Amino acid sequence: MDYRIEKDTMGEVQVPADKYWGAQTERSRNNFKIGAAASMPIEIVHGFAYLKKAAAHANADLGVLPVEKRDLISKVCDEILTGSLNDQFPLVIWQTGSGTQSNMNVNEVVANRAHVIAGNKLGEGERMIHPNDDVNKSQSSNDTFPTGMHIAAYKMIVETTIPGVKQLRDTLAAKSEAYKNVVKIGRTHLMDATPLTLGQEFSGYVSQLDHGLKALNNTLDHLSEVALGGTAVGTGINTPEGYAELVAKKIAEFTGMPFRSADNKFEALAAHDALVETHGALKQLAVSLMKIANDIRLLASGPRAGIGEILIPANEPGSSIMPGKVNPTQAEAMTMVAARVMGNDTTVTVGGSNGHYELNVFKPVMAHAVLESARLIGDACVSFDEHCAVGIEPNHDVIKRHLNNSLMLVTALNTKIGYEKAAKIAKTAYENGTTLKEEAINLGYLSAEEFDAWVKPEKMVGSLK
Amino acid sequence: MDYRIEKDTMGEVQVPADKYWGAQTERSRNNFKIGAAASMPIEIVHGFAYLKKAAAHANADLGVLPVEKRDLISKVCDEILTGSLNDQFPLVIWQTGSGTQSNMNVNEVVANRAHVIAGNKLGEGERMIHPNDDVNKSQSSNDTFPTGMHIAAYKMIVETTIPGVKQLRDTLAAKSEAYKNVVKIGRTHLMDATPLTLGQEFSGYVSQLDHGLKALNNTLDHLSEVALGGTAVGTGINTPEGYAELVAKKIAEFTGMPFRSADNKFEALAAHDALVETHGALKQLAVSLMKIANDIRLLASGPRAGIGEILIPANEPGSSIMPGKVNPTQAEAMTMVAARVMGNDTTVTVGGSNGHYELNVFKPVMAHAVLESARLIGDACVSFDEHCAVGIEPNHDVIKRHLNNSLMLVTALNTKIGYEKAAKIAKTAYENGTTLKEEAINLGYLSAEEFDAWVKPEKMVGSLK
Amino acid sequence: MDYRIEKDTMGEVQVPADKYWGAQTERSRNNFKIGAAASMPIEIVHGFAYLKKAAAHANADLGVLPVEKRDLISKVCDEILTGSLNDQFPLVIWQTGSGTQSNMNVNEVVANRAHVIAGNKLGEGERMIHPNDDVNKSQSSNDTFPTGMHIAAYKMIVETTIPGVKQLRDTLAAKSEAYKNVVKIGRTHLMDATPLTLGQEFSGYVSQLDHGLKALNNTLDHLSEVALGGTAVGTGINTPEGYAELVAKKIAEFTGMPFRSADNKFEALAAHDALVETHGALKQLAVSLMKIANDIRLLASGPRAGIGEILIPANEPGSSIMPGKVNPTQAEAMTMVAARVMGNDTTVTVGGSNGHYELNVFKPVMAHAVLESARLIGDACVSFDEHCAVGIEPNHDVIKRHLNNSLMLVTALNTKIGYEKAAKIAKTAYENGTTLKEEAINLGYLSAEEFDAWVKPEKMVGSLK
Amino acid sequence: MDYRIEKDTMGEVQVPADKYWGAQTERSRNNFKIGAAASMPIEIVHGFAYLKKAAAHANADLGVLPVEKRDLISKVCDEILTGSLNDQFPLVIWQTGSGTQSNMNVNEVVANRAHVIAGNKLGEGERMIHPNDDVNKSQSSNDTFPTGMHIAAYKMIVETTIPGVKQLRDTLAAKSEAYKNVVKIGRTHLMDATPLTLGQEFSGYVSQLDHGLKALNNTLDHLSEVALGGTAVGTGINTPEGYAELVAKKIAEFTGMPFRSADNKFEALAAHDALVETHGALKQLAVSLMKIANDIRLLASGPRAGIGEILIPANEPGSSIMPGKVNPTQAEAMTMVAARVMGNDTTVTVGGSNGHYELNVFKPVMAHAVLESARLIGDACVSFDEHCAVGIEPNHDVIKRHLNNSLMLVTALNTKIGYEKAAKIAKTAYENGTTLKEEAINLGYLSAEEFDAWVKPEKMVGSLK
Repeated sequence: MDYRIEKDTMGEVQVPADKYWGAQTERSRNNFKIGAAASMPIEIVHGFAYLKKAAAHANADLGVLPVEKRDLISKVCDEILTGSLNDQFPLVIWQTGSGTQSNMNVNEVVANRAHVIAGNKLGEGERMIHPNDDVNKSQSSNDTFPTGMHIAAYKMIVETTIPGVKQLRDTLAAKSEAYKNVVKIGRTHLMDATPLTLGQEFSGYVSQLDHGLKALNNTLDHLSEVALGGTAVGTGINTPEGYAELVAKKIAEFTGMPFRSADNKFEALAAHDALVETHGALKQLAVSLMKIANDIRLLASGPRAGIGEILIPANEPGSSIMPGKVNPTQAEAMTMVAARVMGNDTTVTVGGSNGHYELNVFKPVMAHAVLESARLIGDACVSFDEHCAVGIEPNHDVIKRHLNNSLMLVTALNTKIGYEKAAKIAKTAYENGTTLKEEAINLGYLSAEEFDAWVKPEKMVGSLK
Repeated sequence: MDYRIEKDTMGEVQVPADKYWGAQTERSRNNFKIGAAASMPIEIVHGFAYLKKAAAHANADLGVLPVEKRDLISKVCDEILTGSLNDQFPLVIWQTGSGTQSNMNVNEVVANRAHVIAGNKLGEGERMIHPNDDVNKSQSSNDTFPTGMHIAAYKMIVETTIPGVKQLRDTLAAKSEAYKNVVKIGRTHLMDATPLTLGQEFSGYVSQLDHGLKALNNTLDHLSEVALGGTAVGTGINTPEGYAELVAKKIAEFTGMPFRSADNKFEALAAHDALVETHGALKQLAVSLMKIANDIRLLASGPRAGIGEILIPANEPGSSIMPGKVNPTQAEAMTMVAARVMGNDTTVTVGGSNGHYELNVFKPVMAHAVLESARLIGDACVSFDEHCAVGIEPNHDVIKRHLNNSLMLVTALNTKIGYEKAAKIAKTAYENGTTLKEEAINLGYLSAEEFDAWVKPEKMVGSLK
Repeated sequence: MDYRIEKDTMGEVQVPADKYWGAQTERSRNNFKIGAAASMPIEIVHGFAYLKKAAAHANADLGVLPVEKRDLISKVCDEILTGSLNDQFPLVIWQTGSGTQSNMNVNEVVANRAHVIAGNKLGEGERMIHPNDDVNKSQSSNDTFPTGMHIAAYKMIVETTIPGVKQLRDTLAAKSEAYKNVVKIGRTHLMDATPLTLGQEFSGYVSQLDHGLKALNNTLDHLSEVALGGTAVGTGINTPEGYAELVAKKIAEFTGMPFRSADNKFEALAAHDALVETHGALKQLAVSLMKIANDIRLLASGPRAGIGEILIPANEPGSSIMPGKVNPTQAEAMTMVAARVMGNDTTVTVGGSNGHYELNVFKPVMAHAVLESARLIGDACVSFDEHCAVGIEPNHDVIKRHLNNSLMLVTALNTKIGYEKAAKIAKTAYENGTTLKEEAINLGYLSAEEFDAWVKPEKMVGSLK
Repeated sequence: MDYRIEKDTMGEVQVPADKYWGAQTERSRNNFKIGAAASMPIEIVHGFAYLKKAAAHANADLGVLPVEKRDLISKVCDEILTGSLNDQFPLVIWQTGSGTQSNMNVNEVVANRAHVIAGNKLGEGERMIHPNDDVNKSQSSNDTFPTGMHIAAYKMIVETTIPGVKQLRDTLAAKSEAYKNVVKIGRTHLMDATPLTLGQEFSGYVSQLDHGLKALNNTLDHLSEVALGGTAVGTGINTPEGYAELVAKKIAEFTGMPFRSADNKFEALAAHDALVETHGALKQLAVSLMKIANDIRLLASGPRAGIGEILIPANEPGSSIMPGKVNPTQAEAMTMVAARVMGNDTTVTVGGSNGHYELNVFKPVMAHAVLESARLIGDACVSFDEHCAVGIEPNHDVIKRHLNNSLMLVTALNTKIGYEKAAKIAKTAYENGTTLKEEAINLGYLSAEEFDAWVKPEKMVGSLK
């Protein structure tokens, strides 16, 4: 492979001749061969592109960066945002815990690419843009990386997570409405219980997702705070007056999202409770989705020896050995995602709690976990929605059979004959394999007419949400 | 021991003669010998007292319970709330996952105690109040237990957690203000960095707790929803018209807290995302407190071979073998609490995700974990505050020595002579064990006068929060 | 309340007149009002009794403690082990992270109680036994607490956990044998699959528990290492020659368990990977038990609208509102225990990873979590065994109906007519609500005779374990 | 893009013309657009290559597969193992929880590639090898996927994890030996304590890793069990007599690793406690490595305002804003890996506990987590070793200064003058900022000669490990 020589404050390094990155990126590649290459989420790199552009504009507005430099830097940032330079960011999550080297990777790519855009050849001639003095001006890794990860996480949540969850929520709400009169047996402790409608059952899922979305939205305010302007330790050393607020405004403008300067820059560098908070809400959604997906696969179980009260789409052959088998595969993908998100929550918790003094150095692993969870939840909801939820249909025959056999319809008699006599009827019917009505009459507690008048499943489902 | 005979729908049971509980409580004692006795949190029993009283009132208002019964039930509930009957609740967490037996424990105690209050002898004569038909009227374990746990958790959080965290937050804020001009070295990656003030450092802790309190408050709305009125499966079977809203109003009235009827009763029984949500915020606080306590013990480390920039109170002999040793024991208690809360979060997550159909049957373990975390955080903050935080003092000599020795003051020169020359100065001073000023002059980058004018720690701390 | 004055190196303290504890215990009570009182597990105190006695004997054997002192100390330790002094240990988990204060609690109680045993009045006269110089001789909190927690954990595991799990395992093995010929439908993805026997199904549970017990046993070697002899930092300062090995031998002798001196005392104080290792195995058992309990409640679900293939004992009325309901309550207790153990694992992990230099200061929280998990698993297995597993019976009618209706019996035809044709038969039968045999013949793939010869459920269950 | 038509039992599907995969793989690509493409670990695909080859050989040996088919299948499997077909496996983790579609992906690629190897054109002519009837012969997804994941995990652990940990362990052991006479201050509770040698300190790390390796090795026996032969539900339906043992032998032969047929096939499909067990040991290593890396960065902190007792290599510029800064970046990568592994443990726990009946359907997410953890630990240990541990040097000046200033040397006087007088000396010196010797003499407790004779740090480090 062809190389060119790049250097930093520690000396010279050989870098692949056709890559825009420089000495520090290359050092990192060599020093951190941990796991798959390029594992640092590209969304964070794109977050950097927004903030580098915003910083260049703020610096220019405040008179500390020439307009030509601003424009060159901005142009490269725009290129990065198109994705065309994605292969210029080869670093891994498992690097410096401040993400310093990914910040430098961006600085170096911007500087070198700007050099080329300005009409020069890569690696030749005097650089017009310096990675530290220009691209990183008024910045530190310590405030850029948390800013980049907030931008990336916020975007992922509003562009992928929330729309995905909402899509599934809306389908479930439509099902809830569609089946609001389908009376079915309820189950508590996995045991037969009093009836409800299929629509009511689904309304619980909708309510869970509504609460989850609300919880997630509650965390966005903290996540909208950007650390930029804090620089090295939160004091804002080497930034011009008014920079922190201005650069946040620029980020808000370029992203179209309500980012604002962090309330407290010392927290913003030293702790990532905003990520902990946001991931807490993602985990709550995972908990809800685990319950929902589990219920749906249990309800769809069978076809002949399961519960079988709903039908779900058959999307693929279910078994490589059992012909004709159809499985609740979307529910399985969803519950696996939930398990992953629950694990990510532990990772974020451990990382978040282990900051020291002015800096938390678990930034990359925390940011990765949040982005992974946010994306997986969003994607899995869409997948589950399109390939499963929209196709759910009640299996009316089974629903009716289960309902009519139920011993728990006896509950309707509590307020007529008291709990103890009602219990006696249910137990006797259970033991004899008979119906409630038969035993109610046999035991002499009520007449057939009374039974028919009092035990009406469709009257037992109330009107509650 | 003396026994009396109690019975339920399954038959007769021997119960200790002097206890108010009945057959189902006794069965549970015998069937669930798991862990220490009486582990079901008493706060949940007290939550039940509120809701049983509220239900009696609502039932009476709606014409389904005689006023005399209402008054008897209320009277016992008030007794329970004084704590005088605490020894009547012997059950464990590890019982039916719906908490059915703790609901019955309350029903039985109320019925039997009412019998005695009404002038009868325990176990003799016709009971005026029936545990199921009266005390449990318009209720099910499935809606009472979640209501009881929401009441208990809400109360614990507003009465113990939030005041405790606020107390510590206020002390830290006062320290932040008091030491706002104490310039000290910053540390990133545990390495010397540019300066900040001790007040700024502490302001980050205050901001973390402010964000944590906000996050916790955000969860209270979900937690204020009560399941009562949903009865067996969420449909509200066997409840009078208007009951759900009325009973929630009564609970709000009796507790003085803004409880309201759950938006969706099916969710309220089948999922406990409200607990998941609340515990997520408790966990966030644990993460913050771990960071804060860790920083404080690191800053106080020494006395001669540590960081030693702050002094903390010496509350007890620190070592049984090393005389004169003083340890950061409050920080240790706090970080152990944090570890416990992080574990509890996993428990709540696992429990919350494993509901089936119309009922989640991890209620007791989830409620216990939330209550434990809420109390431990509140108590630990008060303890840490009173026995550590209020007594924190800067160790000015050490702070000054560390600051003046720091090589990172060189950062002030970046904007004067560029990053690379500044780096050269720092490295040379590091290698030679000299000062920045000496090397700056030796290297010919600037004059002594320029150095003194440009490198002023007190100018490097900015005015940011 | 009456008080007497006790003092330590920091000065005088008022102590309840009738309690044996001294100044440092009282300071701890006042300084750590966190959570319920006396939460430090009594098993750890008892572990201390073993080790204090062992240390007294080793010290005497090595000539650094008079025999009379040894005998007095031993006598009190024996008293502690009877449980009669349990109320002398009022401290909480949330204290110094080295457990220093619980060590001192024991030292003080032993010294004061010895004073009384020797014929003196508590708080009067010259103490014959000094808590630090005698009871704590050749010891430090830093090596006693980890020794105490290893003793406590080891005992709990061999006396409660392992016997409990084995009891359940043996019952499940007996059921597996008893039902080895009960052919039933298999289920994969919760969907109908090829048959197996109920005995085979249960054999999987037995194998899980066997593997879990083996894994737990694998951890006992590490747990049998005791830190004693390391004293303050692992170097064994202030211990006589040969002490570490001798004291470990004494502990082994007094407990009847194979304790030995830790391979490396620096690890033994600074890290508690032995607890992490042991709890990892406890968590594995929790995972297994969650699966098993879940399966059993699913198999027992119904009675009319569930799976219903097994019958489990009805131990208590299942519902306060639904008469006659019976629930899988033991499975619920078990799965709640599993959720708690999973949370404890996070606590142990967080605590274990946060040691600093020569000492881990999460000892009490880690030890508590291990003891809680060990006890809960043991107790829950016994409870589940006695109140559920032993009473499990197949519901032959349901099993037969499910088996005979199954479409997955078609798998037997794969090797006769190929996967694709077999799939076609299954699908057609599913769509038409018919039997495999009908459709096999209709499709012309095989004759009725061939079908009967080839599709025999009892031939499809193999002989594998 | 060019397409060809492939079909399965559900009908026709368009597949990229140049890819070997077939209909079911393509369905899965379309149905599971969750997260990044091709996230299913390639190591699992390679595990499949071993087992498909082994199955072909076993089938041939047992007379149910022609030798020519065996050879064709084997040839493709060998190709897969070279990595040259890696781009033929586009599926994601978040698919069917049994990994059915990845099994089919392998079956389809083998069948189609064999077709080409046999001299045909892809998609044209009669296939000689059928993906289900030949490649999948005597197999099911339900037994192949767990077999594939065991092979992949076992290989990763013995080839990457264990060698990596050992390499670091050996370096630390060499450092321990090299610095066995470097006496330094000990620290407990982060506070100055009695001395030990740097070699002793490092010996604790070595012991942790030794215990961790032992724990990991203990899990390999369970992991060496392969499910193959259980087929659909564990009964081994559609396998020839003797197949399970034979195929395990073939796998052992082809991999050179001691795989054997699982003790119980029902467990092997329905539960993945082997992965839970193995990951428990990986998590233990993560706990150890977190402690070790944390200690090392604390010891290396400074250079002027930290602990500074060791020097670690400077591998890259540490800061984009603070010139000359050097950070413990390898320790940061390591602790981030530890946080990731701790999260993965939660994922594995949740997945492992949620199996139902005859099948656990969290296989892909569990396998991915185990592989990720195993690789990250191995890689991070090598990276930490090569770029940090090997270069660790004591900073003798600092070590000596800290040691000589220490007040805890007073502990040596306990056995001479008692704990209380020793404490008095230490406290007075602390308060007056003087030395122990000065105050010892001032207080009249001992003479200068006695002090010098009794307080010798090098005598206080014992000879313990």
